[in-house]
Amino acid sequence: LIARYFAPLAAGAPGAMALTDDACVLTFDGREDLVLTADALVGDVHFLSSDPPDRIGRKLLRVNLSDLAGKGARPVGYLMTLALNESVDEPWIAAFCDGLASDQAQFGVTLLGGDTVLTPGPLSLSVTALGVAEKGAALRRKGAAPGDRILATGSIGDGHLGLCALRGDFPDLAAGHRRHLVDRYQLPEPRVAFGAALGRARLGQAGMDISDGLLGDLAHICAASSCGAVVEAHRLPVSPAASEILALEPDRLPELMTCGDDYELLFAVSPAKVTRVQALASESGTQISDIGHFVAGRGVSVIDRVGAPIDVAIGGFTHF
Amino acid sequence: LIARYFAPLAAGAPGAMALTDDACVLTFDGREDLVLTADALVGDVHFLSSDPPDRIGRKLLRVNLSDLAGKGARPVGYLMTLALNESVDEPWIAAFCDGLASDQAQFGVTLLGGDTVLTPGPLSLSVTALGVAEKGAALRRKGAAPGDRILATGSIGDGHLGLCALRGDFPDLAAGHRRHLVDRYQLPEPRVAFGAALGRARLGQAGMDISDGLLGDLAHICAASSCGAVVEAHRLPVSPAASEILALEPDRLPELMTCGDDYELLFAVSPAKVTRVQALASESGTQISDIGHFVAGRGVSVIDRVGAPIDVAIGGFTHF
Repeated sequence: LIARYFAPLAAGAPGAMALTDDACVLTFDGREDLVLTADALVGDVHFLSSDPPDRIGRKLLRVNLSDLAGKGARPVGYLMTLALNESVDEPWIAAFCDGLASDQAQFGVTLLGGDTVLTPGPLSLSVTALGVAEKGAALRRKGAAPGDRILATGSIGDGHLGLCALRGDFPDLAAGHRRHLVDRYQLPEPRVAFGAALGRARLGQAGMDISDGLLGDLAHICAASSCGAVVEAHRLPVSPAASEILALEPDRLPELMTCGDDYELLFAVSPAKVTRVQALASESGTQISDIGHFVAGRGVSVIDRVGAPIDVAIGGFTHF
Repeated sequence: LIARYFAPLAAGAPGAMALTDDACVLTFDGREDLVLTADALVGDVHFLSSDPPDRIGRKLLRVNLSDLAGKGARPVGYLMTLALNESVDEPWIAAFCDGLASDQAQFGVTLLGGDTVLTPGPLSLSVTALGVAEKGAALRRKGAAPGDRILATGSIGDGHLGLCALRGDFPDLAAGHRRHLVDRYQLPEPRVAFGAALGRARLGQAGMDISDGLLGDLAHICAASSCGAVVEAHRLPVSPAASEILALEPDRLPELMTCGDDYELLFAVSPAKVTRVQALASESGTQISDIGHFVAGRGVSVIDRVGAPIDVAIGGFTHF
C-alpha cells in the first residue's frame, strides 16, 4: 500500500527515501526560518465521510497550507498520519492519493513521511506542514497597529454556506451557485502564492488564515496586537452565490462573518503600503479586499454603510 | 485549555510563541540535517484507554523519540494533534500533560505546536518529532554489509509480554516481574542519549528502532542493505522477568523476537568498531548486546547455541 500509493507522493524529496525508512532527512541552509504547523481532521466532524476521497485528501493538505500562507511562508512538504477504518478500501486510498498528487503539483510540496494505522472509529487524519520564510519575515498574529488596514483575500462565508447547502439548506438556489459553495466547503483554496509573496515582500504587519470565522480570527489578531478593529460590513467580499442567499435571507450576514471554513488570509497593512500589496495580489491573481481598520482599544466591532453598529455575537465556532 | 495545560509545554521554544499563533518559527544553522518522523496511536489499538493518561502521553512522545534515536538524531521538539472524545475530562488532560512535561525534561524536547479536536471515536493521537543530526550522519536502514555485527540495546520482548500480562497471561508471575513488564509496555524507554551519541560518532553502518518486532525490523535493514542476517537466539538479551516466563514456557521465545513494542535500537557495526560502540553505550548507561551478524544473501535466520536453525515465522505484527 505504501509503495504503491504513498511512495510516489514522496518522489520529489530524496530525503524521504521513498518512505522506505523511519524518518526523512532534510537539508536547509541557515538563511531561512522553518515554519511548522499541524492540523487534524476527523470524519463527520471536519468533513463528511461521504465526501469524495480525493477532496478529503486535498482538504487535509490545504487547511495546513493555508496556515503556512497566513504566516507568509512558502510551503515545502508535509508529514501525514492516517487512522483509517474498515470503510476505506483500495480505490478510496487511490483516489485520496490522486487528490494529494494533484495538490502537490499545484502547490509545490512533497510528502516527507508519516504513519498509517487502523481505527475502529471515524477517519482521523493529521498533517504537519513545513514551510520556510526568510529570517524574521514570517507573519504573526502580533504586530497590527491602530490605523493599519484590515485586508482579506477571496470571499468570506462560502465554505460555511456550502456546508449548509450539503445539509439541505437553500433548496431553490441556482445549481451553479450551489456547486460553487459546496466546492468552497470541500475544497478550500489556500492562498499559497500570495501568502509567500506577502511574506517575502515584508509588507504585512500581522497575519493569519481565516479558519474559525472572520471576526473570531480578527479578534485573535487584535488580542495578540493589543488593539481593536472595526469591520465595515458593506465591504465584506461575498461571492455571487452568497449574494443570492443574502438577498433572500439578509439575517445570514453575521453567520458569514463568524462561521468557519473560509481558509482565506487576513492581514494588517500600513495604509502607505496598501497599493503595493494590491499590486502583489494581482500578480498572483488573488482578489483582496480592504474591509476596515485597526483602532486603539480592544475588541472587534462591525458597522454598516452609514457607520451604525451591527450587533454580531462573536461566539466560538463549533463544527457540526 | 491550551493556555493552561499545553502552553507551559512550549515554554522552552520562543518560536512556538506559547502556542498563541498558528505556526511555530524555528531557526536552524545550516550545519545540521533536520530529521523528521511521525507516528500515530489509537486508543484500544496501540494503548489501552484505561492506561494512566500520563503514560499515554509519554508513550505517544517516546515512540517518536525512539524513531529519531534509531536514526542517530538528537531530538529537538514535536508537534502534536489530539482527537479527544467525551471520556476525556480536565484531570485526564492535566495528567496527560504532566507526563509530557516530565518526558520533555528527561529528553530535552519542547512542544512546538499542534491541534486539538473532538472525535466521536476512540482517542486518536499523532506526533511529528523533529531532530537534528550532523550533515550526513543520520543512520538509515541501508548501509549494513556482510560481516557487520548486529547490535541491540536493552532487552527484547518485554513490551509484548507486558501487554500479555495486562490481558491476563502469567497469573503466577512474581509481582515485581509483572510490574516490570507492564511498565515496559506502557512506558518504553527510548534510547535517546545513546542514539544521538551513536549518530554523532558516526560508528553505525545502518540503524533503526525496533517497534514491529526484532526479526521483522532486522529484515527491513537486510532488505534495504541487500544482505541477510543470522541471529543467535542464545545471545538475545532478555530481562529477568522474561527469563522467568521462558523457563516455564520456552515456546514463547519466537514471540519475543517477532512481536512489537520493544522500542530498543537495532544497528549494524563493523567488527572493528564494536569496542568503541560498547564504550559509547556505557557512557550513557545503555546495555547493548551483540546478537549476530549480517551475511551475504538475503533473509533473516535464527540459530541456537550449537548453530542449529530455529524455525521462526517472521509474519507481520498485528496490534490487538
